[in-house]
Order: sequence, then C-alpha cells, then structure tokens
Amino acid sequence: MTLEGKLLIGQDAVSGSSKPINAINPATNETLEPTYVGGTIAEAERACELAETAFATYSETSLEERATFLETIASEIEGIGDELIERAMAESGLPKARLEGERGRTCGQLRLFASVVRAGEWLDVRIDPAMPDRQPMPRADLRQRHIGLGPVAVFGASNFPLAFSVAGGDTASALAAGCPVIVKGHSAHPGTSELVGRALQRAVKTCGQPEGTFSLLFGSGSEIGQALVADPRIQAVGFTGSRGGGTALMKTAQSRSQPIPVYAEMSSINPVFLMPEALKARGKQIAEGFVASLNMGAGQFCTNPGLVVAAKGPELDAFIESAAEGVKASGSQTMLTPGIFDAYEQGVKRLSNSGKVREAFRGKVGETPNQCQAGLFITSATDFLGDPELQEEVFGSTALVIECADQEEMKRVAAQLEGQLTITLQVDNGDVQAAQQLMPTLERKAGRILANGWPTGVEVCHAMVHGGPYPATSDSRTTSVGSSAIHRFLRPVCYQALPEALLPEALKDSNPLGVSQLVNGKRE
Amino acid sequence: MTLEGKLLIGQDAVSGSSKPINAINPATNETLEPTYVGGTIAEAERACELAETAFATYSETSLEERATFLETIASEIEGIGDELIERAMAESGLPKARLEGERGRTCGQLRLFASVVRAGEWLDVRIDPAMPDRQPMPRADLRQRHIGLGPVAVFGASNFPLAFSVAGGDTASALAAGCPVIVKGHSAHPGTSELVGRALQRAVKTCGQPEGTFSLLFGSGSEIGQALVADPRIQAVGFTGSRGGGTALMKTAQSRSQPIPVYAEMSSINPVFLMPEALKARGKQIAEGFVASLNMGAGQFCTNPGLVVAAKGPELDAFIESAAEGVKASGSQTMLTPGIFDAYEQGVKRLSNSGKVREAFRGKVGETPNQCQAGLFITSATDFLGDPELQEEVFGSTALVIECADQEEMKRVAAQLEGQLTITLQVDNGDVQAAQQLMPTLERKAGRILANGWPTGVEVCHAMVHGGPYPATSDSRTTSVGSSAIHRFLRPVCYQALPEALLPEALKDSNPLGVSQLVNGKRE
Repeated sequence: MTLEGKLLIGQDAVSGSSKPINAINPATNETLEPTYVGGTIAEAERACELAETAFATYSETSLEERATFLETIASEIEGIGDELIERAMAESGLPKARLEGERGRTCGQLRLFASVVRAGEWLDVRIDPAMPDRQPMPRADLRQRHIGLGPVAVFGASNFPLAFSVAGGDTASALAAGCPVIVKGHSAHPGTSELVGRALQRAVKTCGQPEGTFSLLFGSGSEIGQALVADPRIQAVGFTGSRGGGTALMKTAQSRSQPIPVYAEMSSINPVFLMPEALKARGKQIAEGFVASLNMGAGQFCTNPGLVVAAKGPELDAFIESAAEGVKASGSQTMLTPGIFDAYEQGVKRLSNSGKVREAFRGKVGETPNQCQAGLFITSATDFLGDPELQEEVFGSTALVIECADQEEMKRVAAQLEGQLTITLQVDNGDVQAAQQLMPTLERKAGRILANGWPTGVEVCHAMVHGGPYPATSDSRTTSVGSSAIHRFLRPVCYQALPEALLPEALKDSNPLGVSQLVNGKRE
Repeated sequence: MTLEGKLLIGQDAVSGSSKPINAINPATNETLEPTYVGGTIAEAERACELAETAFATYSETSLEERATFLETIASEIEGIGDELIERAMAESGLPKARLEGERGRTCGQLRLFASVVRAGEWLDVRIDPAMPDRQPMPRADLRQRHIGLGPVAVFGASNFPLAFSVAGGDTASALAAGCPVIVKGHSAHPGTSELVGRALQRAVKTCGQPEGTFSLLFGSGSEIGQALVADPRIQAVGFTGSRGGGTALMKTAQSRSQPIPVYAEMSSINPVFLMPEALKARGKQIAEGFVASLNMGAGQFCTNPGLVVAAKGPELDAFIESAAEGVKASGSQTMLTPGIFDAYEQGVKRLSNSGKVREAFRGKVGETPNQCQAGLFITSATDFLGDPELQEEVFGSTALVIECADQEEMKRVAAQLEGQLTITLQVDNGDVQAAQQLMPTLERKAGRILANGWPTGVEVCHAMVHGGPYPATSDSRTTSVGSSAIHRFLRPVCYQALPEALLPEALKDSNPLGVSQLVNGKRE
C-alpha cells in the first residue's frame, strides 16, 4: 500500500497540522518519505472522545469476540507481507531476520492474549455466597470480577518497532483487558507504525468493534504525548523508553485532578554476577556468551547485560581477556536512530572520562553512519560504590566489569544496585551456598533472576516478569511482557446481592463463561 | 496494664521528645492520661532501620509460621480483655457493643489473613517448564512467585480505632504479604493504640519474629508521617483518612527518588439510586433503612450513604417525608473527636448556606459535647450538576437528596459523580431494564455496587472490594478490606533456569507448600 503520512483516528485517516516528521534510515542518514505531519491537541482530544465512547461497548465484548479481535489483528499484520519488514528495516537499521522474528513475536503475543482472554483467569472471579442464617448478622451474596480501567495511552518504543510499538505488548494487553488504545507512534518509525495501524484499523472494522477502540497519533516533541496523559478520559499509560521520558509522564499523570497509573519501563543495566566456581570452570565459555548477548541488536535491548560483577583473581583476568578479545573482534552495527547513536557515544565518553575506568577495550569502528562500536570497561568495586553515575545506563553494546575484592564486596555491590529488570547469576554447584546468600538482595533488586543464561531474549509466557523496582520501571508490581501484563489495565468491582439480571455474565450462577472461580476463598 | 505513653520501637518502649499528645474523651471533652510525647525523625529512622533488617527474615517465614503469627496477634488482642474496650470507648465516644463488634472484626480479619497465607493463592505461582527442543529457540524453565514489597507504613484511622488502626486491615494484609509494618498511631486514640501495639509486640516476641517486624510511632502534625513516607526503606503506604491527608502523602511518595505506592482510602459519598418501581412499592421501608444506615456510628463510616438520587414525583415526596420524619426523630450521637465534630458542623453549614438547598430537616440537638445532629437536605439535579462542591463529603449523619426530572437526568447525575467506594441501587423487578442502562456508568464510578441493602457494614471476605476510583481511593486497582487486600503489598519475581537449590520453596518441583499453580497458563 502507499503510505499516506496520516494520523489514524478511529476509522479515519487525517492530516495533522503540527510539526513535520520524517523517518531517517540510520544506515545511510537518508530521509524517508512520506512526511508525517504531527497531530494537534484537537486531534488527541478527538481520539480520546472516540475511545471513551468505545469503552462501554468494547469493555463488554464477550471473551470469544475479544479473543477473535486480537487474532484478527495478528492475521492482518501478517497479511501486510514483506512491505512491513522492508519499511521497518529502512526505518530502524535492524536486520531482516531480526524483524521477521519480531513480527512473529508480535503476532504470537496477540494470540497469547487471545488465549488469556478466553481462559478468563484475568477476571479473578470470586464468589462468597449469601449466608442468610449467619449469627449475629446475615451475610449478603458478594461477587467480584475485574473490568478494564478505561481508555489507555500507549507510547511506541524505538527499539521494538513491532513488538513494543503500535500493536505491541502494551497495546495487546490493554485491548485484552477491554480497554480502547490510543498509540502515540514513535517518530523513528512512522511508516512501520502506519502499516500496523492500518492493519489494526481493518481488524476493528472486520470485527465490528466501535471505531474508537484504536487510534494512532504522531507528534514530534512531547506536546501530543503530554496532552494524552493529561486528558481526563485516559485511565492508564504504557510506555517504554528513557528514564527522562518516563518520569515526565509520571509527573503529568500524578498532577491530574484524577491521578492515573503509568507503566513506564525505563532503564536497567542488568548486572551479571560471576560466581567463583563457574568462573573457574568455564570462564572462557561465559565470556563468549556474554559478548554475544552484549552485541545482540547493537545492545539496544532493555535487558542488555551492562554490568559484570566478580571477585578479582586470575580467573577473572582470564574472563576479561576472553571477553576483551570478543569485544575487539566485534563488528560495528547500525543503531536505531542518529539520536540514539549520539547518546551512546556520549555515554561511552562519560565512562571513559570518568577517571574511574582502569582499562577499556573497544570493538571495530564502523565506516557508515550511526555505527555502534562495542565497548568493555573495567573498574574497581570501590570506585563503583563511590560513584552513582557509574550505574547510569549506556544504551548500546557497552558493559562495565566491576572487580571486587571478595564475595563480601560482591554483596555490597548487589546491595547498592538500583532497581533492575534482570540479574543474572553464572553459578556452578559449588557456588550454591554463596548464591543463596545473595538471593534475598537480588530478589529485592530485580524482576527476573536467571542462572547460566543471558538476560536478552525475553520469553513471552505466563511466568515472565519484565518489570522490576524503580528506575527499571515505574511500578514493580507489574510486568510488561507475558500474560500477567493484562492485570495492569484492570480493576476489581464487587457486586452485592444483585438480581441475577443485573449480574455480569462472568458472575452468573450458571457460570456461562465456564471460568475458574474462587468460592469462599477456595479454587473451584 | 498501666499505659506508659511511649512509642514502641521494635521490642523497646521509648519516650518521645517532640510535641505532647493527649486523647480527649469526646463525650465530655475531658483530657485522658497518660501524655504521649510525639516521636522525632530519629525515632522514625530507628523504626525504619529495624524494619529493613527484619524484612529479609520475616518475608521468608514459612506459610505456617506467618499464619500462626497473625493468629497470635488476634489472641493477644483478645487477651487484653475489657480494658481495651473501656479505653477505646473513652477515646472514641463509640458505644461498647460497637467496639466489641469491631474487636471481633479485627481479630477475625487477622485470622482470615492467616487462612489466606496458608492457602497460598497470593503467591500466584506460575510455571512454564523448559522446552529444550522447541524450534527455532529452546525455552528456559520459567517460574514466578510474589514476594513482599518491603517495610510498609500504616496510618491509623480515627473512625476504626481497632479494625483500621494499629492491628487493622492494612497492618494485617501487609504482615500477611511478608512486610514489616510501622504504624503511625492516630492521635485520637493513643491509649487504644498502645494496648494493641503491646499485644503486637508480644506476638512478635512469642513467635520469634525479628523485632523490627512491628513498631508504633506517635506524633502530632504531619512531621513523623511525612518522614516515614519519605524514608527510602519504606516501600508502600496504607492510609485511611481525609482527602487532604491522603493527597499530601501521595505527593511525598511521588517526590521520592524512588516513588512508592500509596493506598489511601479517602472520601466517598456513596450514592443511593432509588429506582421508580422500588420507590413506589416500598418507599417507606426504604426510607427507614436509609435513616438507619445514615445514623450508624454517627455517620462516621467511609460508606455512609450521603447522596440519594431519584426522579421526582409523589413517590419521592413520600420517601422524603418518611426519611425526614426519621431524621427529625434521630437522637444526637457523640462524634469521634472535637475536630471531626467541628468539620461536620462546617460541612453542614456549607450545605445550608450554598443557596442550592430547597429544604432541610435536622435531627435532635445534643446537650453534651461533640454531638452529631443528623441532617437531610434536598436539592435539584440542575443545581447538583452545576456545583461540584455539592459532591464534597460531609463526614457524619448528613445526606443530600437529588431530585431529578426523569431517568435521563438520573443518568446524567451518575455520569458526573466522582469516584466512590459504593453505589447502591434500590431496585425491583420492574426496574431491571432501567438499572441495566445505569450499570456501565456505575461500574466506572465505584468499587462496589449493591442492591436493596445499605453500604454501611463492609463484609470482610474474599469477594469484597473496599476501593474505587479517585478520590474514593488513590488506587482503584485494589481493595483495603477483604482477602484481596494482600495484593497491595506484593510484587512478582520471575526465576529463570535456577538450580533447584536456589529456587524458593513455593516454586520447587515437589511443590512442598502444596499451592495452586498455573502451569503453561492452565490451573493445576
């Protein structure tokens, strides 16, 4: 199809009248057509109005109808074909295989949420039957289900133009919860966003959902995004991006006359703890796995392993030597945007110039624009513990190794970490006792703890937690990947002594939805 | 026992050195001994330090151990005997039967959470087994459980000196979640707080829990409370009180370098919709039930029915006549504190002087101090819709009746309501269709919808939602009454490919805790 450079508001495609946005091919710095003229506040308001109207109908779709809608979105995205992959490659500099994989992940995610919707666990149905003869007071019949919060604003992420953008995880989980979604597309990939947005628009129409179920806005700067978060009809926000961006949205959300939840996934350096026996037994192999994880996607993953913590000694020296060799042999990779490339260069410079870095190894220099040159830096635990700046995320293929005097110092480093998405342990049988000592600290610091693997590659499943204490995310009680993500957009409602005719389907005596129920606190 | 007027920090009882606090018997305005000298920031810090230390041990107590601890608290409270009821009567002006009932509720609540802890549903165990042969990529073993957030600050409520104070719902649910608790006792009932605090202290000791599991602070003004919420070791806040108090804590919590969740239960006027057939069939009976609910506890309940919405006509006139008779016959009742009495008087005056009130009926004037004189006011829907101030809570036995032109205007009133804890429908068979039309609006406005009953009397059970959209609470995704309240203080952690020896008990292959598991998204 021909990209039109338009905002998608309900079933309409409209031209904006604010500042123009053009995608840039980061591999060439070439400007890509068409121009997307940003929306104004009037357009954000129109999208909110439609979403608000849609909520009453969309939030009460049957489980089957809603699941089918999610599956239709997936089919529509697949139906776009190669055009989607080609445009996403041009806009992101990401290789074809990665984007094909990401498309699979995006559609798989939509289908997972379809199955989650059908299973109905998310309704968390609870029934406490009436006890008319209870002494001293009878008990009324009490039933609980969960409903959607209302319209949700989603901010597309730069680093996942498909899986965490227009029809990505936030959108899929909000739609699964029964919430209409307004996406603010990322300015780095407006064409990819339009293609996916059109697919979503078609799915809304095919499935007969109210048009306000989905809208897609563009806008440079923060005006449109802030207007969305401030709009009284928006009831929750999903965001993946920088700490500065996330905290600005949190502030706006809290300043509203009715504050709303913001689910911002922001920054994480994903520490890796090398336990002594593992380091001794397979330091070289660990170093290889580490460099591969560090280089994946030019390090532009929320779960990139940016910190390695180990006790010093010949085993760590050998690990560093292997890792340094790997880094030095690393070819350069195109970064997502010129802005991300500049920020990476500055981050690396900040590390180099900190005066705290003992040694630095760098990968190959690129010859084309926006090339990520891998980096490995080494510092002492003393310096790390004394300088909070060394915990700042460098978004790209750069990591810092912390040399600790001993296990006790490794524990002190763990205790001083900021909140993280992941913490990795390289651990052998002989390390178990030492690792057990670390576990309580690690659990307080991260949403996911993994052993003998690498944090990149986040499985979309039921047990996943892609979340963690601040500043990894704005809300450690949730996850943005996996089926639990639906809970972010739900709230409980209790129905007391309601006539059968007024009870929602999920709570009727005959259990027509066939969902799991907690009756008097027992699972039935 | 002799009350000592001390702060309880861990196992110590220490004298504060800030401003003195004395309880006042609101029935007589007599000052009660002893004097509680408020704590300083140093004492808040000491309590936080102990709580932080306690967390690692207390959060990993076995289900049985934690449940027994909660039950021991209940037994210790019962063991205080009449002294607790007498002191609470003197400090609150509440009658004996009510306080005995409230003690039963408090201990029942602790025992409910003991059973919730044992059942282990709150762990939300999810297991996605490894799929080593999956193509194109194998899946690692992934397991999820929930853990406590960390130390929790709880603010005692004035209107429930037992059930929402030192060992009340917030404390019970936080302790159930594995979080140490620091209570800021309400200055209206420090003696009751000390008695219950000592019971908690004994339970901590008897059960061998770390001393920082519980502390009790006093302080006039907001200094100690704000210091607690700002302390980096505190990870969540439970509060029941005024909108001003709640929003001040929210602001502090959001301004921290690591923002934390605040669960504030603030203000609600609990609208009652009288549907036409119900009004016609049993207007007089409804009026009697309404006045009884309005007068319960001098109207000092979060769920007091402060708003009645109905279409005008002879049936509504008859209802008003009956209700007015009931109100005029209502004897005065002692309010909880001189401050609450003053605020009530001002609230009633604000209504009377608003120029929007068509008629007013008042109950009997009291002869002793701090007497709540019941009130019933009437206004038109037009005036109500035009004046947001008429939605402000008047904490006490006063309600406002909104006369609507018709059902459509009732809907417009519903749509303009702020967030509520409850909405009540008086509804007969012939009203079902009209009520169905209202339901989607009511569900967005309230945490609990009830039919043909009254909102006062909140059942402590599994299906209860004592929560609702802002400003009823700061977080509509939760409840502060009932077993779901435990979820406020939990966060998920995912364990990927961890050796069995590093897995928490709840997640081990043999399921030693015997808890419900979601395996590959299916309940087992």
